[in-house]
Amino acid sequence: MARKELLLLQEAMKKSGIDWYLIPTDDDHQSEYVGDYYKGRTWASGFTGSAGVLVAGQEEAYLFTDGRYYVQAAKELKGSGIELMKSGMPGVPTPSKFLVEKCEEGMTAGFDMRVVAKELGDIVKKGLEEKGAFLKDIALLDGIWTDRTPRSAKEVFVLDEKYAGESYESKITRLREEMKKLDACGHVIASLDDLAWLFNLRGGDVECSPMFLGFAYVTLEEAFLFLQNGVLNKEAEEYVKANQIQVLPYDSVYEFLGTRTEKKVMLDPERVNTKLAHSFAEETEMVEAANPTQLMKAIKNEVEIENLKKAHIKDGVAVTKLTYWVKKNCSTPDCEYTEIDASNYVDSLRLASDGCTDLSFPCISAYGPNGAMMHYSAKEEDCAVLKPGSFYLLDSGGQYLEGTTDITRTMVLGEVDAEAKRHFTAVARGMLNLQAARFLEGCKGVNLDILARMPMWELGIDYRCGTGHGVGYYLNVHEGPNSIRWKYGPGHHDCDLVPGMVTTDEPGIYLENKYGIRLENELLCVVEEENEYGRFLKFEPITFAPIDLDGIDPSYMNETEKMLLNSYHEQVYEVISPYLDEEEKAWLYEYTRPV
Amino acid sequence: MARKELLLLQEAMKKSGIDWYLIPTDDDHQSEYVGDYYKGRTWASGFTGSAGVLVAGQEEAYLFTDGRYYVQAAKELKGSGIELMKSGMPGVPTPSKFLVEKCEEGMTAGFDMRVVAKELGDIVKKGLEEKGAFLKDIALLDGIWTDRTPRSAKEVFVLDEKYAGESYESKITRLREEMKKLDACGHVIASLDDLAWLFNLRGGDVECSPMFLGFAYVTLEEAFLFLQNGVLNKEAEEYVKANQIQVLPYDSVYEFLGTRTEKKVMLDPERVNTKLAHSFAEETEMVEAANPTQLMKAIKNEVEIENLKKAHIKDGVAVTKLTYWVKKNCSTPDCEYTEIDASNYVDSLRLASDGCTDLSFPCISAYGPNGAMMHYSAKEEDCAVLKPGSFYLLDSGGQYLEGTTDITRTMVLGEVDAEAKRHFTAVARGMLNLQAARFLEGCKGVNLDILARMPMWELGIDYRCGTGHGVGYYLNVHEGPNSIRWKYGPGHHDCDLVPGMVTTDEPGIYLENKYGIRLENELLCVVEEENEYGRFLKFEPITFAPIDLDGIDPSYMNETEKMLLNSYHEQVYEVISPYLDEEEKAWLYEYTRPV
Repeated sequence: MARKELLLLQEAMKKSGIDWYLIPTDDDHQSEYVGDYYKGRTWASGFTGSAGVLVAGQEEAYLFTDGRYYVQAAKELKGSGIELMKSGMPGVPTPSKFLVEKCEEGMTAGFDMRVVAKELGDIVKKGLEEKGAFLKDIALLDGIWTDRTPRSAKEVFVLDEKYAGESYESKITRLREEMKKLDACGHVIASLDDLAWLFNLRGGDVECSPMFLGFAYVTLEEAFLFLQNGVLNKEAEEYVKANQIQVLPYDSVYEFLGTRTEKKVMLDPERVNTKLAHSFAEETEMVEAANPTQLMKAIKNEVEIENLKKAHIKDGVAVTKLTYWVKKNCSTPDCEYTEIDASNYVDSLRLASDGCTDLSFPCISAYGPNGAMMHYSAKEEDCAVLKPGSFYLLDSGGQYLEGTTDITRTMVLGEVDAEAKRHFTAVARGMLNLQAARFLEGCKGVNLDILARMPMWELGIDYRCGTGHGVGYYLNVHEGPNSIRWKYGPGHHDCDLVPGMVTTDEPGIYLENKYGIRLENELLCVVEEENEYGRFLKFEPITFAPIDLDGIDPSYMNETEKMLLNSYHEQVYEVISPYLDEEEKAWLYEYTRPV
Repeated sequence: MARKELLLLQEAMKKSGIDWYLIPTDDDHQSEYVGDYYKGRTWASGFTGSAGVLVAGQEEAYLFTDGRYYVQAAKELKGSGIELMKSGMPGVPTPSKFLVEKCEEGMTAGFDMRVVAKELGDIVKKGLEEKGAFLKDIALLDGIWTDRTPRSAKEVFVLDEKYAGESYESKITRLREEMKKLDACGHVIASLDDLAWLFNLRGGDVECSPMFLGFAYVTLEEAFLFLQNGVLNKEAEEYVKANQIQVLPYDSVYEFLGTRTEKKVMLDPERVNTKLAHSFAEETEMVEAANPTQLMKAIKNEVEIENLKKAHIKDGVAVTKLTYWVKKNCSTPDCEYTEIDASNYVDSLRLASDGCTDLSFPCISAYGPNGAMMHYSAKEEDCAVLKPGSFYLLDSGGQYLEGTTDITRTMVLGEVDAEAKRHFTAVARGMLNLQAARFLEGCKGVNLDILARMPMWELGIDYRCGTGHGVGYYLNVHEGPNSIRWKYGPGHHDCDLVPGMVTTDEPGIYLENKYGIRLENELLCVVEEENEYGRFLKFEPITFAPIDLDGIDPSYMNETEKMLLNSYHEQVYEVISPYLDEEEKAWLYEYTRPV
């Protein structure tokens, strides 16, 4: 007996003559996190993980997900009649390739083109055409998913220039310069962070990110913003008028684009859905290029940088207070505090800070072996107690009007053994060595990654992920195009690290069933000096919170590394101590002592 | 009054109806160094530098060369009627682009397609077609260059398997496997090092590289080798017969390829000349791919590695003896020895070594400011005397039957100041830090370069070149595809560093009019351990010669770096001292003392 919702879907497929139907985990904007309204794949399959694709035939169905979710998916799919496809395992095709394989000549495949990026949609379309099969744009869930959560439509408000640091007028002028370089007279924007940044508007439609659902179409003279009805607050209403931004209904964007007469339109195939791209008149010429706003918003302006530093002090104070609390309360065997207690405490400290409107992602509060799971999420009903003898890992951040933060600290509870200290010290060395890099302009993350990773590689250990990612300004906590990694997978792009970019520096060691150690600072790229060789750049840490000396064995550090640790700790004390009470302050003084 | 040879060329152009003619610096094999026979550009223009392109019209002519040669070219072109085009300066086009620009509709451009790589030839051809101009394959120099040096045709001999480590049969079987992967049934090889490696044959047609002029055409069943008449020695004659290698005349290759019926032919557009590529019948399908032999020969086999280590000991002994000689004789103001005396001495030591058949490149023997010129070549009539108070840089290498070597040491003569020591120490730290790298398989040179470069960047200094290149086995001293550099220019390819590759590690500091410091070891990539994270690799230095402690200021080194220096020096003493006389040995013992 298959899952009820799957049967409903298959019935709808039969009625509409669809042989194979694909439901990804995506919204109309190719967002990293999608709202409940867009969780059609979960509804149809029962699998609740954050990543997965359902490929349904009229009589069979397959759910693709990656290694993080094999166990959970197997459990949740039990009895659903859906077969689990383990993405990443040898011989398992991508869902799109699989869909094309399944479609024989004359068959019809379908998906809702709004939730599939143009790049992927085009690949499927081409594959089907080559086989003599057809592709139909059809939103099958609309008729059958009756208890669907309504689409979020929170208030949209203006982000004051004292936070944004650059007016909408200036930004759109710069954008138009980029359009002219590519000879484009029209430009579609669907990615929510680009939209929010360009218009200096914010909303609340995405969990932990102050963004709003919308699209924009920009020409060399006009700008159109597609929003859900009535979302603009009064100030925003006046702001769009004053800035001659023409507001149109959210759902009208597709029809609107079909009426445009611009000859050459620029769009980002990874950040625009298939339906948008295919809405234009046949004769419109497409220029595929990354949204220029990607790079523009990655380079923070001076006001943003000033603000970010303020936000990071508030954030550092919250994490330092939490550290004090954990070290004080959880180092003896009688401790009854759990991962949830600790995360509740740090969340409350952060949310009580002036200007903090939200967390920037759900806090990862992980004790011992739980820390080895990079995406661990503690549940009230099943979470660990913080006991002496292992590590406690806390990865958290806030959304402040002065910027988005992301910080990780790992704390020693009680005592840990010599090997654990060696591991902790290696992670600290990696973070400090990357933080201390001096480099010529033109360097990319791929050139620098080894500075953070080498101490782990020397131990024959690797963290199987990148070392760092860009961070938005009161936007997404993960933001491109800057990153620090040693090799690039699909979807990873390379870019020069330039002054004004903020990138995380977060090496780690993850030992299954044992513990996880991660330390994460955010680094601001700044100019060090300019001479006949070019511009030399360096990093300035903007994150300030102590590194647990109880985990450090200085015998594994050379003098340079000890100096880096001591001088960072000196800064931590200087920056954070004014915001602590006397007891905390005395503790921090001792806790940041030179090694 | 224009240069006589240019006028002869322009006359020939008029007779043949050629409006624009291009002469590059290349042979039929796209070699790094070309023999005198191929120096037509020098003949026609009078410019003797190692890189440059002549573009001649019927009434005007232009010589393109890069920054290394601006001064020399200006001098040599004086009164020739040829205009100097400074490649690399803003607004200066590439010679091929310039040629296309100059050709108007209906005009005819020409060059000898044998000396232009397919990749470049095709770009020019396309550019001309788009303008409605024509391209003609014409060897204009053949009729007018009467005092041309004959083409080299030295003896070709077999490189015994005790040196090569793998039979021709095994190599060609592996090559055919690669051809099959690309579905190719024919493969043209024109690059001389690929040819020599594949057939286990060597010759003497290229300065400092034991290679012979030739081409090969390999099918899944047969192998054809195109050689100049009578070059095979008796043993080689029997060897080709025994191995069923069909030998045909060198110049017949073009006609021969036109008769082939293989449907799909693989060729490397950067390593095959335009004429070869266009010799095939119209219906032949071309698969463009790097020669598989490039990667195959870069990964040295166990026999080659054993031999290489032996060659490097001989080489290290020569450089150590030279160092002793220089330190002893050139540290007082009355020294009268010159750069040439020193290079003569090291050349003679090297050439006297068992199995050393040649130098691997003309020795760079550079005192003081001369060391700042990366490609300095001392001339008997105008060379510096080695005096106390500066550095002496020696970059040299040999061609041994046991492999090709490349080593650089910089020596302090007398005393140098604190800043000079700081610079020398930074270069040593860079070399040692890269040498000590541990890394996961999958790393490329671009990931590791910063380990060598960081000490210089910390001082706000850069060496404006890569950190290292691959080295051949009794072949070219510069060999791809492996290299260590932080960014890739045109023609640089990226490849994973894998066990068996040998790459140089040669950071430096070059201060114009002051001095040059370079230290260079060759590093063999080996497996360190394999575990759940993958294969960890490391480097093993195979070059052993002391690093001048008179240039080292240990206060700029951390403990790790001191340990690396001391343990390397311990190895140097152990490996080299058995081959020294008592006086040299006592000196080396002191000279490699721990810091």
